[in-house]
Amino acid sequence: MSRDIYPDYPPKVDEVQAAHIVNAIQDWSIAHGLAVRPPPSFVQPSQDPNTSLAITAPVTLFPSPFPRNCLENALAIQKSYNELYARIASDEAWLRPIVEQYVLTSSLSPERVTQNVKLTSVRLTGVDDFTAALWNVHEKVKAEGYVQDLSLGLFRSDYMVDVESETKGTTTSIKQVEFNTIASSFGGLSTQVSALHDFLLASGVYPPKVASTIKPESLLRSSSSKLLASGLAEAHKAYGSGTTSLPKCVIFLVQKPERNVFDQRHLEYPLLYTHNIRAFRLPFADVLVHTKLDDNRTLIYTPPHSPETPYEVTTLYFRAGYSPDDYTSAGAWDARLHLERSRAIKCPSILTHLSGAKKIQQVLATPSSPHLSRFISDKTVSERLRSTFAPIYPLDSSEAGQEAEKLALDASSAERFVLKPQREGGGNNIYRGKIPGFLKSIPKENWPAYILMEMINPPPLRNAILRNGEVQKGGVIGELGIYGIVLWRSNVEGGDHEGVKEVLVNRDAGYLLRTKGDTSEEGGVAAGFGAVDSVMLVDV
Amino acid sequence: MSRDIYPDYPPKVDEVQAAHIVNAIQDWSIAHGLAVRPPPSFVQPSQDPNTSLAITAPVTLFPSPFPRNCLENALAIQKSYNELYARIASDEAWLRPIVEQYVLTSSLSPERVTQNVKLTSVRLTGVDDFTAALWNVHEKVKAEGYVQDLSLGLFRSDYMVDVESETKGTTTSIKQVEFNTIASSFGGLSTQVSALHDFLLASGVYPPKVASTIKPESLLRSSSSKLLASGLAEAHKAYGSGTTSLPKCVIFLVQKPERNVFDQRHLEYPLLYTHNIRAFRLPFADVLVHTKLDDNRTLIYTPPHSPETPYEVTTLYFRAGYSPDDYTSAGAWDARLHLERSRAIKCPSILTHLSGAKKIQQVLATPSSPHLSRFISDKTVSERLRSTFAPIYPLDSSEAGQEAEKLALDASSAERFVLKPQREGGGNNIYRGKIPGFLKSIPKENWPAYILMEMINPPPLRNAILRNGEVQKGGVIGELGIYGIVLWRSNVEGGDHEGVKEVLVNRDAGYLLRTKGDTSEEGGVAAGFGAVDSVMLVDV
Repeated sequence: MSRDIYPDYPPKVDEVQAAHIVNAIQDWSIAHGLAVRPPPSFVQPSQDPNTSLAITAPVTLFPSPFPRNCLENALAIQKSYNELYARIASDEAWLRPIVEQYVLTSSLSPERVTQNVKLTSVRLTGVDDFTAALWNVHEKVKAEGYVQDLSLGLFRSDYMVDVESETKGTTTSIKQVEFNTIASSFGGLSTQVSALHDFLLASGVYPPKVASTIKPESLLRSSSSKLLASGLAEAHKAYGSGTTSLPKCVIFLVQKPERNVFDQRHLEYPLLYTHNIRAFRLPFADVLVHTKLDDNRTLIYTPPHSPETPYEVTTLYFRAGYSPDDYTSAGAWDARLHLERSRAIKCPSILTHLSGAKKIQQVLATPSSPHLSRFISDKTVSERLRSTFAPIYPLDSSEAGQEAEKLALDASSAERFVLKPQREGGGNNIYRGKIPGFLKSIPKENWPAYILMEMINPPPLRNAILRNGEVQKGGVIGELGIYGIVLWRSNVEGGDHEGVKEVLVNRDAGYLLRTKGDTSEEGGVAAGFGAVDSVMLVDV
Repeated sequence: MSRDIYPDYPPKVDEVQAAHIVNAIQDWSIAHGLAVRPPPSFVQPSQDPNTSLAITAPVTLFPSPFPRNCLENALAIQKSYNELYARIASDEAWLRPIVEQYVLTSSLSPERVTQNVKLTSVRLTGVDDFTAALWNVHEKVKAEGYVQDLSLGLFRSDYMVDVESETKGTTTSIKQVEFNTIASSFGGLSTQVSALHDFLLASGVYPPKVASTIKPESLLRSSSSKLLASGLAEAHKAYGSGTTSLPKCVIFLVQKPERNVFDQRHLEYPLLYTHNIRAFRLPFADVLVHTKLDDNRTLIYTPPHSPETPYEVTTLYFRAGYSPDDYTSAGAWDARLHLERSRAIKCPSILTHLSGAKKIQQVLATPSSPHLSRFISDKTVSERLRSTFAPIYPLDSSEAGQEAEKLALDASSAERFVLKPQREGGGNNIYRGKIPGFLKSIPKENWPAYILMEMINPPPLRNAILRNGEVQKGGVIGELGIYGIVLWRSNVEGGDHEGVKEVLVNRDAGYLLRTKGDTSEEGGVAAGFGAVDSVMLVDV
């Protein structure tokens, strides 16, 4: 049976209509900050050395259809996801062996790991060295004792729609692609793009024929900007009166340069306008230059533009520090340690950052894994969460590993799977029918370096994307992200993180739809390049 | 005595601080649409053929000091100015001889004028031919009879601060530079720049030393965007149910290309968001392609992107058509006539457009002129208005002309004046001490082609302007504009416009501060290039 679940899409427009829509988007987007700094391929830095130019962020011309049941389910379980990851990040006894095993299976000797972690000036090239280095930062702070038991998560759980065609009919569900615990981006632009699509419809920019496909009541606004800002504000307030008489602030740790700066600014502005909280942007590379810890390990920020007015930092919002690329300079690991030692509330803490590793997702999603029930005792809730996992199997000697071996070597069942190297960011995936041959071509002792994941089958869809002034049309895949805010207190008295003591805030916080070109045709939407999009709800 | 009335300005900032302010401005401005399309000197059209790039509009780094009494006076008299110009535009018997005399003194034969007006495909090169052509459009519509007696004015009265040093002390007052009755621009960006300066202060971007000079309570927000939009909405509503069953819309008549497009969009968006009124941008050159008049002279707009959905146009907002440059194409005058004939409410009508001519300002501002009292019978009000005129003398045989001759030929009194050619946009000004010699060097019969205007003496001020990513510092002159909205009904039953029948709306609508480089120093702020600015009120 067909996986076609959507109406004929996108709406047909002629050249005049398309040009009119593009013109309206290009004006509205700049008037409302739905923008990025232009890519160097479009504007060479030498042409605009002071970075004064901006360009419409890549956006879809039309909101993309999305099954209502899937959207509702994703929203409904976000608070459970928030809770799950708060618990994971507070459960050191559970996390440690998984992280250790992960670092080991990445076939680095423990010596090498230790060496890398200690040699902070050495460039860490592997993501697994990176995981080890993060864990090491945690260990050092633990040895000294944490002074802040509150953690803030501004999470984003990403899904694709999976279509299953059965004899009974077609069913749609969401399957998780990843869970982001650090630097969950596009919350600022998502609010704007959903307002853009609303505008295009309400203003009559879309011609009537389009408006007959896209109904106002099917559009879904995302309030992610103000909600994520309110999460930072809650942490700021929960920090309390602090240990100094200095004015207080939130720090946005950022990369430099940052093309996606307006996305971040859209969280900063409501912090000031709605919550009267000052926020400063601090490049991650400058942490040790402009911050220090006082005797109470209170984090003091001295703005370079205002050295006579130091601030006590309540909340550290990481929009940098998530990638090994941020740790190339001398002192980057010292800086991360320095921040983790501090009294500021981290968004996220090191343990929360680590909890977002693909490895954790794999462990949870292994069929018949006992892990989920450790964190979520309510069976209804845990089953609901589990239903959003795409099954992931290890290829090892475990019971699940034995099952995986059978599934992978059988040409027929292999059709449902993708074989992925376990190391994050490493190597090429092997798809479907090619899996049995590939596995047979490598020594069996290397199999545990791979995981077997059930493929997600998204519904076919076409849309048009505006990027750098040009429209590309073609097959696309949408990825839905649901933002979540959770502020919690961990049990850290015993030294280890021993569970969640108290959840102060737990909320869903709007959504993101990112739409990317698929590889279904040549000359279509560039594969892998995403655009921000909004949801048009459809009942399928 | 010194004309120095302001505190030491701008606040001193070091290089780090200036860079921080610039960075904050460049992000905030794009996030909030305080932007323009980049000039061709910065981005060649071939690089960005689809006009997707934008850049921060030229802005001052700091709000400029402005005397509180001057600001308050300018605001207080705006409604009187609105009324004055509504009455002028409704008083054809008064306007006709002035326009006729003006066209004659511009030394064109009446034949030439008529010829130009008729030959609509001929490029009109002189502004006075232009005035004659406008008048001719009015005459044609009058011959047929006007079908719309409502007019909308979105005006802007522009002033400079005049400092007079007397033995008693220094006094400041406002003197009118010009009164704009068509396409009064920057109402959109003005709202944004006043919010920008507010942000820079509230967010701590300005270092504390700056914040000690610039107090929050001295900053003045401008609500011009939403107020001007509300003016258009009032006209739209006053248009009534119309003559067709078509949906109704407002048309923004625009130039193409338009670098200042976001300024205009900031009026369009609140029309939709606050008033639920659709507005469309129509290039002036395309008027005859996309609009037609039905038998009732109702203006029907057929959007090229949606030809199946024509609209009845309630209100025509001219952001084009004010300059002879807009009348170069075949049919431009036909288009203007077509619009003026229509039932749509014009913002502005031809007579209102003509009322904004410099000649009208000159006639009103001639000392001991009887004209003002024709329109404003209340002496207190007329004196208050007159106090904002910079005296302007004709150099003719009238009584005021005799006085002017004496003032201009005396080397000492000439010091207070500037001699300007009467033709709009024509020739160079002669300043102060050079006036007597110049007049003596030309035949006396040519003197009436000039007017003698008292110089305005603005207070010295320095500020910094960000333009295209670069900061320029130096001496500046500020020009304050006060926006006004007036919607009125004229007496048109007798054929002529014979006075104001009814004033439906009369309101002031925020302010604009434009700051330009003066010519006091080389390498300072580029003379003539303006930046949008906001007011910091000072008591002087």
